[in-house]
Amino acid sequence: MPARLDQLETSMPVDLATRITASARTTASRVSPDIDDWVENKRKQPFESTIIPLAELNEPNGWGIAPGTGNLEHHSGRFFSVEGLHVRTNHGPVREWRQPILVQRDIAILGIIAKEFDGVLHFLLQAKMEPGNMDMVQLSPTVQATSSNYTQVHQGKRAAYVEYFTEPGRGRVLVDILQSEQGAWFHLKRNRNIVIEVTGDVPLHEDFCWLTLGQIGRLLRRRNVMNMDARTVLGCLPVAAPDGDAFDGDGRRSGEPGGVRTMTEILSWITGRKSEYELSAALVPLDSVTGWRREARGIVPAEGGNFSIVGVRVHARTREVHSWKQPLLAPHGLGLAGLVVRRIGGRLHALVRAEVLPGHRDTVELGPTVRFMMDDYPTTPAGRRPEFLDHMLSARSGVRFDVVLSEEGGRFLHAETRYLVVEDDDFPLRVPEDFAWITVEQLMALQRHSYYLGIEARTLLLCLNNL
Amino acid sequence: MPARLDQLETSMPVDLATRITASARTTASRVSPDIDDWVENKRKQPFESTIIPLAELNEPNGWGIAPGTGNLEHHSGRFFSVEGLHVRTNHGPVREWRQPILVQRDIAILGIIAKEFDGVLHFLLQAKMEPGNMDMVQLSPTVQATSSNYTQVHQGKRAAYVEYFTEPGRGRVLVDILQSEQGAWFHLKRNRNIVIEVTGDVPLHEDFCWLTLGQIGRLLRRRNVMNMDARTVLGCLPVAAPDGDAFDGDGRRSGEPGGVRTMTEILSWITGRKSEYELSAALVPLDSVTGWRREARGIVPAEGGNFSIVGVRVHARTREVHSWKQPLLAPHGLGLAGLVVRRIGGRLHALVRAEVLPGHRDTVELGPTVRFMMDDYPTTPAGRRPEFLDHMLSARSGVRFDVVLSEEGGRFLHAETRYLVVEDDDFPLRVPEDFAWITVEQLMALQRHSYYLGIEARTLLLCLNNL
Repeated sequence: MPARLDQLETSMPVDLATRITASARTTASRVSPDIDDWVENKRKQPFESTIIPLAELNEPNGWGIAPGTGNLEHHSGRFFSVEGLHVRTNHGPVREWRQPILVQRDIAILGIIAKEFDGVLHFLLQAKMEPGNMDMVQLSPTVQATSSNYTQVHQGKRAAYVEYFTEPGRGRVLVDILQSEQGAWFHLKRNRNIVIEVTGDVPLHEDFCWLTLGQIGRLLRRRNVMNMDARTVLGCLPVAAPDGDAFDGDGRRSGEPGGVRTMTEILSWITGRKSEYELSAALVPLDSVTGWRREARGIVPAEGGNFSIVGVRVHARTREVHSWKQPLLAPHGLGLAGLVVRRIGGRLHALVRAEVLPGHRDTVELGPTVRFMMDDYPTTPAGRRPEFLDHMLSARSGVRFDVVLSEEGGRFLHAETRYLVVEDDDFPLRVPEDFAWITVEQLMALQRHSYYLGIEARTLLLCLNNL
Repeated sequence: MPARLDQLETSMPVDLATRITASARTTASRVSPDIDDWVENKRKQPFESTIIPLAELNEPNGWGIAPGTGNLEHHSGRFFSVEGLHVRTNHGPVREWRQPILVQRDIAILGIIAKEFDGVLHFLLQAKMEPGNMDMVQLSPTVQATSSNYTQVHQGKRAAYVEYFTEPGRGRVLVDILQSEQGAWFHLKRNRNIVIEVTGDVPLHEDFCWLTLGQIGRLLRRRNVMNMDARTVLGCLPVAAPDGDAFDGDGRRSGEPGGVRTMTEILSWITGRKSEYELSAALVPLDSVTGWRREARGIVPAEGGNFSIVGVRVHARTREVHSWKQPLLAPHGLGLAGLVVRRIGGRLHALVRAEVLPGHRDTVELGPTVRFMMDDYPTTPAGRRPEFLDHMLSARSGVRFDVVLSEEGGRFLHAETRYLVVEDDDFPLRVPEDFAWITVEQLMALQRHSYYLGIEARTLLLCLNNL
């Protein structure tokens, strides 16, 4: 029975995983031979994104400050809003606080079209401008659209290719799962990560290109090229494990080496962490958020707090609407998402952390070993820094991946995160109760389902699979 | 790679599933030979549960009506509370409403201790009195305790055996997963479903007994004997599929017959349903819930609405506290949870429904084919009755399971549900978009994770596995 139960959990027919692995090994393609030039050229297009006083957001058919609450809302009630959050928890050094938070009830489609060329799977990515992007243009999924967008609330053009994801029967679904986004900045946000493989002709619009996973893996090592949404969708594909080990799953039963924890033990550990931590997070009027000031330049924390809410004005002829204003969440400085990995019994394990964040749908998701806003570093005494932070920052020889990538430029202004993977085969096996060593394959099995892995962990898993 | 990914999803070593199946086939045991007599005797003990006016709940160290909100709360702030819920959705005939709702942020332990006797797995169940139970005493998990209970907020005795679940290393974890409860009556409620196998001696307290799964399966066919919490925990065990087919999972890739949908297609269908339906459910003061009246006998719906909130006074010498008062949610009449099953390609499929309920953590969970409060039947015109309701009620020859079982007697007063399984091999394969045919094995694979199957579907799956 369990052998059969196993097989039922397969997301992918064998042939598909083989083809995905083949695509990951193909680092050049006749279809898009000059991808670097192409990206550079796209970045030369004229875009403009300027910070404006929050009060200037107010427009009859645009954004405004809601009377009574002070919330920032679009007149249509769609897109997203900036509201207040009142958090109480039994976890961590601060047990109660208020903060602004982005609220987006819509589920956006983050969709990628896949198609074979010359026998190799290619993925259709878009060079997309977002107002909060570093370098303005980054590579995004084929479609990155809220239902406000594809139902055309903003009166602009419909996003290209969206019909592949909204109309049934356009192709074969390879992946289709809801995943969370930043639990510190979004309230219960989740998006639909979907990949559809088509066999027929697909018109190639300006700003789009077909790339193999090998080409994408190479671009992933460049600063701020692969955007967050592309990373989370691609991360849901089952690429080959980095070490190519034959893996026998719950190894203890077959006598072969498995992960240090079985899947049952991992699920039990996650359940235990969720049971340990209570957290209630209630939306409240933005005006009632104590500890934050409304200034001309935005809503800023009185002290502590590591982001502000600002407004921007945007001009971009390539977007569905050519000019608009909107609020953005602007982090103060660089984030760090650091993952320690090590071989245990010959198998690559990652040290993940059960992370409690107010925007999580079920309190806990798995995060990197360390997640930290580096701006807080100078003012944080050594004794209050996150576990393993200094260890990661001082790593030299074991650095396997170290690239700055951006978070969502449609909601965040210049939100950069340093994604750091450090291999340390001498790292202690015994770790505090909030941490666990989990193999890469086990993380990929968890990622088939919603809300196990947080968004930074998912990007790191994609990076690991591209090492 | 996918073959390995499959194996990682195994919850259970092979030997365990074999032992669970063996336990399910053992319908008599030397350990508890006279289980029917034992249950009857337990039911003869003196318990008393009386409905009292809500105002009489008010006690300095007990329950009270919170000033300002009218919420019913325990003075300790623990256990649960009765608050108001304001629901808005784009789904169903009613798009906005307010209702009372039970709120319980604590994660309760629903824990069962398992142990081998004579080479067969037995499970330690408790004959437990709950104030809202039909027949007062039903068989419950070994431990059924909120953290308010096991941290002794109520100043009573600590629940027996709770240390097996709160202290590490007492046994081997077989199952440990959070699962939801009634999404129409609870706000975001979930409990920890956990089974631990021990090998050492376990003291046998009064009111507890060891049962095989075969004995439990027999009791499951008797009215109001196996309580809701025992059903949900036992339902997480991987018993053998009823038809014993060799199952090959994603059958299309091996050329052998699989389910009508692959797991990828099932996950995609669930994702699609969640994306289709918007639902926001905000807690509001109970006093602000329009359409409900506070009367002496409780909080009752002005019209429609199929439950009331009442108060009870309880005397029970076998509980940790011998006498107390508390509120309960009292449904108006019998619920129906009906499941249509049929063989497709030789394999048993169940017709489940993507059910949108305000208390769900992610909008949609899978429910039975039909869930309905039978009290509403006479006043619901044929055209507004749920799909397939009349078909199920008129079924004759294909009835495979038809037993009335109770929902949680610690929160609900006399909440009875008729669990009905109808096999109909002529039932149409094409069904509306909210429905899907899923094999029993596929449902069991989903049940390894939180919040795929609603609580009624989980009871029905347990019943199916005991056919």
